[in-house]
Amino acid sequence: MPKQTFNPVTLIRKKRDGGVLNEAEIKNLIDAYTSDDLPDYQMSAFLMASYLNGLNDDEAAALTKSMLHSGIVLDLSDIPGVKVDKHSTGGVGDKLSLILAPIVASCGVPVPMISGRGLGHTGGTLDKLESIPGFTVDISLDRYKEILKAENMVLAGQTEEIAPADKRLYSLRDVTATVESIPLIAGSIMSKKLAEGIDALVLDVKFGSGAFMKNKDDALRLAETLVGIGEQFGKETIAYLTNMEQPLGFAVGNWLEVKESIDGLKGDGPDDVMEITHLLAGTMIYLGKKASTVDEGIEKSKAAVADGSAFKKWVDIVRAHDGDTEVIENPSQYPSASSIEPVKATSSGYITEMDAFEMGMVSLELGAGRRAKEDEVDPAAGFLLHKKIGDYVNENETLATLHTNNESNMSDCKDNMLKAITLSDNQPDHHKQITHRVDKNGIHDYKS
Amino acid sequence: MPKQTFNPVTLIRKKRDGGVLNEAEIKNLIDAYTSDDLPDYQMSAFLMASYLNGLNDDEAAALTKSMLHSGIVLDLSDIPGVKVDKHSTGGVGDKLSLILAPIVASCGVPVPMISGRGLGHTGGTLDKLESIPGFTVDISLDRYKEILKAENMVLAGQTEEIAPADKRLYSLRDVTATVESIPLIAGSIMSKKLAEGIDALVLDVKFGSGAFMKNKDDALRLAETLVGIGEQFGKETIAYLTNMEQPLGFAVGNWLEVKESIDGLKGDGPDDVMEITHLLAGTMIYLGKKASTVDEGIEKSKAAVADGSAFKKWVDIVRAHDGDTEVIENPSQYPSASSIEPVKATSSGYITEMDAFEMGMVSLELGAGRRAKEDEVDPAAGFLLHKKIGDYVNENETLATLHTNNESNMSDCKDNMLKAITLSDNQPDHHKQITHRVDKNGIHDYKS
Repeated sequence: MPKQTFNPVTLIRKKRDGGVLNEAEIKNLIDAYTSDDLPDYQMSAFLMASYLNGLNDDEAAALTKSMLHSGIVLDLSDIPGVKVDKHSTGGVGDKLSLILAPIVASCGVPVPMISGRGLGHTGGTLDKLESIPGFTVDISLDRYKEILKAENMVLAGQTEEIAPADKRLYSLRDVTATVESIPLIAGSIMSKKLAEGIDALVLDVKFGSGAFMKNKDDALRLAETLVGIGEQFGKETIAYLTNMEQPLGFAVGNWLEVKESIDGLKGDGPDDVMEITHLLAGTMIYLGKKASTVDEGIEKSKAAVADGSAFKKWVDIVRAHDGDTEVIENPSQYPSASSIEPVKATSSGYITEMDAFEMGMVSLELGAGRRAKEDEVDPAAGFLLHKKIGDYVNENETLATLHTNNESNMSDCKDNMLKAITLSDNQPDHHKQITHRVDKNGIHDYKS
Repeated sequence: MPKQTFNPVTLIRKKRDGGVLNEAEIKNLIDAYTSDDLPDYQMSAFLMASYLNGLNDDEAAALTKSMLHSGIVLDLSDIPGVKVDKHSTGGVGDKLSLILAPIVASCGVPVPMISGRGLGHTGGTLDKLESIPGFTVDISLDRYKEILKAENMVLAGQTEEIAPADKRLYSLRDVTATVESIPLIAGSIMSKKLAEGIDALVLDVKFGSGAFMKNKDDALRLAETLVGIGEQFGKETIAYLTNMEQPLGFAVGNWLEVKESIDGLKGDGPDDVMEITHLLAGTMIYLGKKASTVDEGIEKSKAAVADGSAFKKWVDIVRAHDGDTEVIENPSQYPSASSIEPVKATSSGYITEMDAFEMGMVSLELGAGRRAKEDEVDPAAGFLLHKKIGDYVNENETLATLHTNNESNMSDCKDNMLKAITLSDNQPDHHKQITHRVDKNGIHDYKS
């Protein structure tokens, strides 16, 4: 056993027996783990005890703080304005960052955004950005601040310097069945976001088949925990609960989603995408003190799309990241996948369900996602939906178009896509896309 | 991650979520752990999930079986008779094995006994045996069978070949706060006992301040689990619940306890020691088919003491293990500790409590025990009680005599011994020494 100035077994036992650890005790555990003085086997016992007995809000905040300070915390104080970021818990077809960041930046609010890659059924913002030829997300911290200063926004990947304890803990949780713990998830998200040097944060907490949280109650608890941690760190944090029962928008896949986000920035985005985008962007503009209410922020967000300033900002930011602006201006020039085939309805009826998880897995099989961290993604792969829940389709009508460079998977993917879509004679009830707002004052039903 | 033919994360998750693992799943985990294909951090997550969500009787039996078969299982089928052993969950002043094994062997029942060393406040049979000059417990398996055949009993230490998985698991549990789990404790005990090649087993499950299980309900659950596992393996198993609120007998310390056990074999043992000894020995004689009831077994046990055959067996077995029979025949020849001092009562009254845990720690401080596995023990160190719970003492009367070769600890030990003894004006209620019998038919109140 490595030497320690505290007794880790005592702390594990305390959590095992349902006790509450104080900030110093949690810091001891995380610091010792980061410095290799606490072995994996003790941390995994602690994680399992925490999973099963829970961590309260103070413990979650202490965990976040320890992980945050395991690496560098960016100081953006020399950049004027209230820096606001947005984080989504991830879903299928979630390209909102690509639309809202340019909108918010064009409204004068600096957006320092550090994003992740896709894994399993969910996509990642970095993979979408890298589908743009030349676009570079691996930039130095100096260049990060330079772009933010010049453009009011920046898009980058997490470096080794940001919350390294979280990275190690996440890898351990992944192999010890301790991932799906709300306080552990919240600590992981918030330690990375707080390291960005933000002043305020908007959260899109998704629930449903395509989300990390399958049920709404868990998502609400996660939203509460995230907002609680944000407020404990003095960062105003507002979360929305949004529905991920079906993919967001019509496009799923890296370049296909970039293309749909260009449509959005040009005023031609899908209704579901634009409803959430304007809400999140409006809230960011409000938190960034460029609107006195969220509603005023939403109006400014819509105006930034309507007057072209948001799209212009997007072209500028692609250029700043060494991306090819030509394909942004003329998306039809982008090379298509070698094989594009329709999926046709085998009967008629109303679409009552679209299993977003299964569709995310279809996208992965087409080449757009990764099964393991080290897998490569195909920028052109994915699918376009032609219908969404509530639409009526006739037999033989096209439900979706699949794009792939790996034709051998096409037949299975078509089958799985069909299986993921449920038809019925009865029109389904309208499902609410945004159900709750969670802020420092608690949980509120969302009225659109 | 090492390669595996099963998914350990799935099994950890199953236990985490309160599921039940089947025998093959538990075997997969234990086998992979023993062969270094499952890392410590996954096993510790599984152990914590098992600690918090429990293992049912089938799971405990499967765990036992996997650990049992991680090493060699002795085959004693060429030795005639029903082989019976006894196991105690450990306490302070527990020298019963030294008295009952010769009794049972002298009654014609073979006793193959593999014992452990002391740790913390509890003593260990091996340390007591080794206080006899020359006595050798580290013997080969061939020699083990040879002595058993010749003498109807053998006393040895656990080798690396017996249940190595248990040894590794126990070390991991020790540093991950997963020791005090009833099914894990039961699996650890039974895997080692079953590896001895026994046909039947008697268990002395102790509760109270000086025992591993502090409360009676936990001890009862442990007894039930142990008996359940024994029966699942087709070994008749009978457990007794016995009180360890005060030390057993008057002597605590290695040689001091050997001396008290000689008194017991010569018909001059303390009442509390002999009551449990005859019950356990009688039950072993019954299980070994040398008596048709436990009561008849108890009579035979008493007769073996009265007619000298038990003591004669003890001298023979000491000789077989290369021990000095001279000190067994004439215990007064044994060299005393350099410093022997009385602890005197500072007031008068009835003794209502004797904290066996604290007294075990005093014994350790005097040199008789070990704080860590690698510590040496002093065979002569320990203490003799002059009074027990219920006795009346006058101010300045001697409560105990402390023996040590480490005089610098004497003063603290006297203080702690005094603190461990509570006096009161009121005579305490008589405490029952044996409270329950647990067998395949369930739990029974014990009527002496």
